[in-house]
Amino acid sequence: MDSDALKRAAAEAAVALVQSGMAVGLGTGSTAYYAIAALIRRVREERLHIVAIATSERSAAQAREGGLQLTDFAHHPRLDLTIDGADEIMRGTLHLLKGAGGALLREKIVASASNRLAIIADQSKLVDQLGVVAQVPVEVVRFGWETTAERVSRLAEPRLRLGPDGGPYRTDGGNYILDCTCGAIADPAALEAALARIVGVVESGLFIGMADVAFVAGPDGVARLGSSAAA
Amino acid sequence: MDSDALKRAAAEAAVALVQSGMAVGLGTGSTAYYAIAALIRRVREERLHIVAIATSERSAAQAREGGLQLTDFAHHPRLDLTIDGADEIMRGTLHLLKGAGGALLREKIVASASNRLAIIADQSKLVDQLGVVAQVPVEVVRFGWETTAERVSRLAEPRLRLGPDGGPYRTDGGNYILDCTCGAIADPAALEAALARIVGVVESGLFIGMADVAFVAGPDGVARLGSSAAA
Repeated sequence: MDSDALKRAAAEAAVALVQSGMAVGLGTGSTAYYAIAALIRRVREERLHIVAIATSERSAAQAREGGLQLTDFAHHPRLDLTIDGADEIMRGTLHLLKGAGGALLREKIVASASNRLAIIADQSKLVDQLGVVAQVPVEVVRFGWETTAERVSRLAEPRLRLGPDGGPYRTDGGNYILDCTCGAIADPAALEAALARIVGVVESGLFIGMADVAFVAGPDGVARLGSSAAA
Repeated sequence: MDSDALKRAAAEAAVALVQSGMAVGLGTGSTAYYAIAALIRRVREERLHIVAIATSERSAAQAREGGLQLTDFAHHPRLDLTIDGADEIMRGTLHLLKGAGGALLREKIVASASNRLAIIADQSKLVDQLGVVAQVPVEVVRFGWETTAERVSRLAEPRLRLGPDGGPYRTDGGNYILDCTCGAIADPAALEAALARIVGVVESGLFIGMADVAFVAGPDGVARLGSSAAA
């Protein structure tokens, strides 16, 4: 199976959790794309009544075109379930590294608003320790980003993300992103807390204790992994 | 002495800390206005060589008109001294409540970048406990602010700040502010940390362990208060 087939398999397994009546958070990225497509199919075929909130304009457009009913946090401050991808998933804890695509802030807000967070990925994303391969994206306020980067550099090696035009990449919220090389992260929860304490940091791409379940697809099928920290 | 005379006296006492060669952070508000005016006078009369970073466009304009040389964090990621006002100053700890004016994020970034933070105020700002009178402003990302407010409401009573047009007030960074009624805050450091942990919160107006010295003016003169937590 190629990578796309694995992503689709993981996505379809997670979308099976959706029930009529739910408010659902929609992730962003290549794997979330398959989840939104699968959700559109289920809603059509089974005439489910759901409402959705998207973590990016791209996902919102896909949902809208597929006929999903979009809502907002004014009407639904809590969501039942969010389905999203991840750049790295830590075995056991299901701590996540996310945000290579630049939507980490909205993804984290939507995940925080959700009673359950289901992560979908192919098996290449499953790691023993976060940070060995992927970098930790840290969204920072533009004003004074250089002094914020200086304080981040005591924890990791930050590098300002650039956009296609060669200038600083700007997030949906108008902020900058520091891609931080950390190496193997011994204590992801401590790093996340330390980054959050730095003035000027809006959020990091470390999602600690947020995922309830992960559907990870490999050649032998889709494994459903629970969080060892879950109640 | 009226309130303006007290603010001016506190401002002038703090500006005496400035030495030639320093990079200085300029606060925002009615008391900081007097500090910037006093600094402009000292620079002219004593031919001091300083550079400055302002916490708001208003303060930057005042500094520019007065002939101060403005710099930025690309050139000066660390500042020697910042002089700013506060809405409330806690006796002993010098923990602060700031941000009624809406510039809390820039003020906090500039304060974090400073080796020393000097606070200036008239004696009405000195309190035994923060939060009895003033509200705690909490700057939040616009996306999903309703769900962020829902989580903030477990700690305090949030109310969306409105602007002069009746719509939500927008900060320099394009965010919203929740003015939170807390009552007497028993443990300001714990509240600050709890607010910072909420996804969607950019910063709160609680400045914990940041002020090194406060110049507080009353009818008998200007008292210089040190932080009991300072080294």
